[in-house]
Amino acid sequence: MADTFKRAGIIGKYADPTVGATLKVLADYLAARQIEVMLDEATAEVWTGHGLNVASRETLGQECDLAIVVGGDGTLLNAARSLAPFDIALVGVNQGHLGFLTDVSPAEMEEKLSEILAGQYNEDERFLLHCTVLRDGEHINESVALNDVVVHKWDVARMLETETYVNGHFLNNLRSDGLIVSTPTGSTAYALSGGGPILQPCLNAIVLVPICPHTMSNRPIVVDGGNIIEIIVRGSGHSHAQVTCDGQINFGLMSGDRVRVRKAEHKVRLIHPVDHDHFHILRNKLSWG
Amino acid sequence: MADTFKRAGIIGKYADPTVGATLKVLADYLAARQIEVMLDEATAEVWTGHGLNVASRETLGQECDLAIVVGGDGTLLNAARSLAPFDIALVGVNQGHLGFLTDVSPAEMEEKLSEILAGQYNEDERFLLHCTVLRDGEHINESVALNDVVVHKWDVARMLETETYVNGHFLNNLRSDGLIVSTPTGSTAYALSGGGPILQPCLNAIVLVPICPHTMSNRPIVVDGGNIIEIIVRGSGHSHAQVTCDGQINFGLMSGDRVRVRKAEHKVRLIHPVDHDHFHILRNKLSWG
Amino acid sequence: MADTFKRAGIIGKYADPTVGATLKVLADYLAARQIEVMLDEATAEVWTGHGLNVASRETLGQECDLAIVVGGDGTLLNAARSLAPFDIALVGVNQGHLGFLTDVSPAEMEEKLSEILAGQYNEDERFLLHCTVLRDGEHINESVALNDVVVHKWDVARMLETETYVNGHFLNNLRSDGLIVSTPTGSTAYALSGGGPILQPCLNAIVLVPICPHTMSNRPIVVDGGNIIEIIVRGSGHSHAQVTCDGQINFGLMSGDRVRVRKAEHKVRLIHPVDHDHFHILRNKLSWG
Amino acid sequence: MADTFKRAGIIGKYADPTVGATLKVLADYLAARQIEVMLDEATAEVWTGHGLNVASRETLGQECDLAIVVGGDGTLLNAARSLAPFDIALVGVNQGHLGFLTDVSPAEMEEKLSEILAGQYNEDERFLLHCTVLRDGEHINESVALNDVVVHKWDVARMLETETYVNGHFLNNLRSDGLIVSTPTGSTAYALSGGGPILQPCLNAIVLVPICPHTMSNRPIVVDGGNIIEIIVRGSGHSHAQVTCDGQINFGLMSGDRVRVRKAEHKVRLIHPVDHDHFHILRNKLSWG
Repeated sequence: MADTFKRAGIIGKYADPTVGATLKVLADYLAARQIEVMLDEATAEVWTGHGLNVASRETLGQECDLAIVVGGDGTLLNAARSLAPFDIALVGVNQGHLGFLTDVSPAEMEEKLSEILAGQYNEDERFLLHCTVLRDGEHINESVALNDVVVHKWDVARMLETETYVNGHFLNNLRSDGLIVSTPTGSTAYALSGGGPILQPCLNAIVLVPICPHTMSNRPIVVDGGNIIEIIVRGSGHSHAQVTCDGQINFGLMSGDRVRVRKAEHKVRLIHPVDHDHFHILRNKLSWG
Repeated sequence: MADTFKRAGIIGKYADPTVGATLKVLADYLAARQIEVMLDEATAEVWTGHGLNVASRETLGQECDLAIVVGGDGTLLNAARSLAPFDIALVGVNQGHLGFLTDVSPAEMEEKLSEILAGQYNEDERFLLHCTVLRDGEHINESVALNDVVVHKWDVARMLETETYVNGHFLNNLRSDGLIVSTPTGSTAYALSGGGPILQPCLNAIVLVPICPHTMSNRPIVVDGGNIIEIIVRGSGHSHAQVTCDGQINFGLMSGDRVRVRKAEHKVRLIHPVDHDHFHILRNKLSWG
Repeated sequence: MADTFKRAGIIGKYADPTVGATLKVLADYLAARQIEVMLDEATAEVWTGHGLNVASRETLGQECDLAIVVGGDGTLLNAARSLAPFDIALVGVNQGHLGFLTDVSPAEMEEKLSEILAGQYNEDERFLLHCTVLRDGEHINESVALNDVVVHKWDVARMLETETYVNGHFLNNLRSDGLIVSTPTGSTAYALSGGGPILQPCLNAIVLVPICPHTMSNRPIVVDGGNIIEIIVRGSGHSHAQVTCDGQINFGLMSGDRVRVRKAEHKVRLIHPVDHDHFHILRNKLSWG
Repeated sequence: MADTFKRAGIIGKYADPTVGATLKVLADYLAARQIEVMLDEATAEVWTGHGLNVASRETLGQECDLAIVVGGDGTLLNAARSLAPFDIALVGVNQGHLGFLTDVSPAEMEEKLSEILAGQYNEDERFLLHCTVLRDGEHINESVALNDVVVHKWDVARMLETETYVNGHFLNNLRSDGLIVSTPTGSTAYALSGGGPILQPCLNAIVLVPICPHTMSNRPIVVDGGNIIEIIVRGSGHSHAQVTCDGQINFGLMSGDRVRVRKAEHKVRLIHPVDHDHFHILRNKLSWG
């Protein structure tokens, strides 16, 4: 049977040459399988002497049908956001520590990729959030997030005041250090540290988790994934807030700014080995039992 | 225009004669509107001299198209469980304190009922949980819950040990005081006291909230509403656990018993005035802002 | 130099014959060191053929200057309560799993006891709580606790209503599943599961931890150890509450009962090896880092 | 009988002219009582035309035996820190909303001050924290805090890594948004939002509250007030952390910096009316019951 995937893009952890050893094994393995390979250009900057075709992230997304991401969950978050517009599947290989998103260990990489290339895999569709910042009615910023969109203060000397709407309906005023808007994927990341619940990955829901709220009854709220969430920054006229996507992209906010969050148009196709078990990862990562 | 509802059942708070005054106003109002009325037989035991037709809960469910429930949220939970098999809408009238389910105040009862009877209302479909207890493979108990199914210890001297499966997949072992399986409706009740998140009422999800878990990373988990949850009681052979539905129905459990929870076949049709706003009730009940 | 301790009492885990092997090693070691030994009579019931003098707990407390407790933290809690009136030091030997109170492992028992018997040890004084139940002005029950005194409901169908006073000053009304009154020693036990803080063992403080409180701002409160705490059971006239000491001693409560908790007159003298490090135990037991 | 206090300093909310009305009533009242008055020079900048002697904060501390602070808790925190070295009592007058520290309302100000000036008052001694930052062994910053010293990140893109020692004993490594070191006075402020317990004001204890810790078992820890707490900033070499006192004073931290916190030498003497009840303020501010 022909391989399911014809052309693979390789993306390594940003600015980290230590992934080189795994990338080498990976490139050799793919060559032996006669899979065409494209190396992400940012990765090519730190891992040289590879002899592979180098491509921009965009070209990689257009030309490949599988992206193999080697690094931590942060690396996969970055890859997922940039590749979301393209019809490409992602598989995450970790660096020895199991990740929620990078669930293939380097030791079992070849075995698991063999299964995957033979069509033996589970596909797991995850939605991203699309975030728009509006100032005086104008769209001044746009980004996407696979884990979370966080509106937060950066100035400890005062609380952040925000006003939240769900599909145009006023939810509440909040005085806090910030508000996390998280996907199910992000529910085991920052939202969990903030006191949020764990959401089953397939759940069509968004969770709002206040960070250190002044009022203790301001608890995490889980809403349907189809809702549009709007967060308006209140308080003094100075810029004292930011919005951050996946802990990786920051944008400064002014009082009056409106951060609009909804499901992104495109989804992420995560590929897992057939023995993948999300509950097993939860038990492992959270030291249950 | 003809009234939307032809025959109304009246159900008052269990064993509480103080609802009589509101019931009297209600019965007179319905008589004036030429709505046929049936009085719940349990209510008739404490509120006498009414001159109304008295019916069993089952008859009331079969014959009426609207049940008007006067009391607290507990009264509505009870009515909803017993009327779930019938195609009947429910409206909740409180006794002066706003409830999550009993959102019409006695003062505005006639005004709001006029709107509702004229077809001006919002219908809000809520799912119930169906709970089965299996012992040695046999179904030994069945019940339904609109808020929550709670598996809990009653003997403080030892922790409860349970094992949870979601659609047949092992989730975790838990040592705790108990485990709350809650609907979105129940998320603002006991589950909230246990540290659970608030779920939007329309969300198709079930939340599992451990009560005083021994391991602090055993956090609330929100799963899709289509899952079957199974909780197996572990530990010594003595009966030291119970399952409780809506805080109202108890059943003793033995070690080895399997409590299976899934969405019930029938839904509850809650009727609200058109100005009903669930977020307003949240803000009010949780003293936000 | 003469041994610091002349006569040792041995107490094994209640009704657990598996501690026999450790007890045998222990008894032989003490005989070789020419330390006189008394075996706790409850332990003698499950561990036979030892050839040791058997004594009641009271005699053991009067005659011995050291009690060596083999089992889990529960075994040491029991021993500590019963031996509190006597001037006797306690050392805890676990069964392979580190405990907060039983910090000597069986494998290092002889080495650590050699140090201790040679006077090389740390003494760690812990206070107990004394709990009195008053009904209609009469003392109807008394007990002590090293970890915690818990006033809790056993009937899931209704919340427990209590009223708390600190040194005669009204603190608050509470609707909850119960209230934990914990020593620093107990702060890493049930109180931690209930959401309480960790208290440094030497701290002269008592922490009140509400269990699943209805009002989310009813947070744990730490008060000075010199205070008298009074908890009055409110609500209906039926017995629906209990007070439990260290999860081991239960007493049924009626509405109107007053549970008075204060520091007990006697303290517990815990003996640790010189390399004992409470923070190390915390890091180990709570899987930090 | 002679007045207990001879010379009063008046301090108004920073840069807020709206306290002028209350200050006028206050100044007139004190003049009528023949109490000498000094006006804080920062207050004199926004409240003019008063005809009072104006003094620096230091002179005010040296010359007055009572400081009357009009504003919110933030105003009193500022006054308390600056006046700590002097033997001066403080009384807090709020602006209509009860504060934990500013417990006299403007409406009852004259009545309560009459009692206080007649010697009818409770004195409530609160300790401050003294915070030193050490870089390469040198003291590069010093400050005091009545509520809390917070070591926190300002860059959302990465967690803060810190290492904590209590009296030289390693407590733990922490990955979090920050760590709050709070007095009992501060336990109802930011520490409470972070999930910390409430501490009785008189308690000789310090509470460490991690902010959004990555490991969920990193719970608040209460240690004896006599301990020296040291927090070392770990992680990359860039400056990405700050230490903040009372939410009012910031200082930038580098990796390797050591923040040393202990009780300050001087205490704050808070004056309350005789009917002052801290539990009443708690019930009021936290909406209990």
